[in-house]
Amino acid sequence: MRARVFVRLKRGILDPQGTAVKRALEGLGYQEVRELRVGKVLELELEAAEPVQARGRLEEMCRRLLANPVTEDFQVEIVDEGRRPNLP
Amino acid sequence: MRARVFVRLKRGILDPQGTAVKRALEGLGYQEVRELRVGKVLELELEAAEPVQARGRLEEMCRRLLANPVTEDFQVEIVDEGRRPNLP
Repeated sequence: MRARVFVRLKRGILDPQGTAVKRALEGLGYQEVRELRVGKVLELELEAAEPVQARGRLEEMCRRLLANPVTEDFQVEIVDEGRRPNLP
Repeated sequence: MRARVFVRLKRGILDPQGTAVKRALEGLGYQEVRELRVGKVLELELEAAEPVQARGRLEEMCRRLLANPVTEDFQVEIVDEGRRPNLP
């Protein structure tokens, strides 16, 4: 089973990396960028039978290790349940 | 318009951060993680009229600034075309 975990700074938390990238883009002429925030994406390949159970385990991993609960939010996505091997 | 840009290490490139996180998860008892890679996700709010044009501009930003073409791949996703304000 393949899954993605997004870890982002919470809304109210300043994102200096995002601000720096936005300014650099403006300097290159990309004035259309109104807001930009940088987060992490973890792409996992899991040995798990049930998507519901896998999602629960992944959320537990986020709370215990992958995200900082004070400053970050997380979101778990099951990308491929591992039952359709020929899909992209 | 909202868009997401994924920037990941290319397949053949070692990901020491991913390996470290995988080992830490194993240490906490999460033996089901077969593979784990860490990438970046940039979430952007754009002033752009056309999704096709916006995608072209974003791919250009990736080539010029956001991704390292030697070690990284990128992927652009238009999340919300800005015409359906009530959808999640």
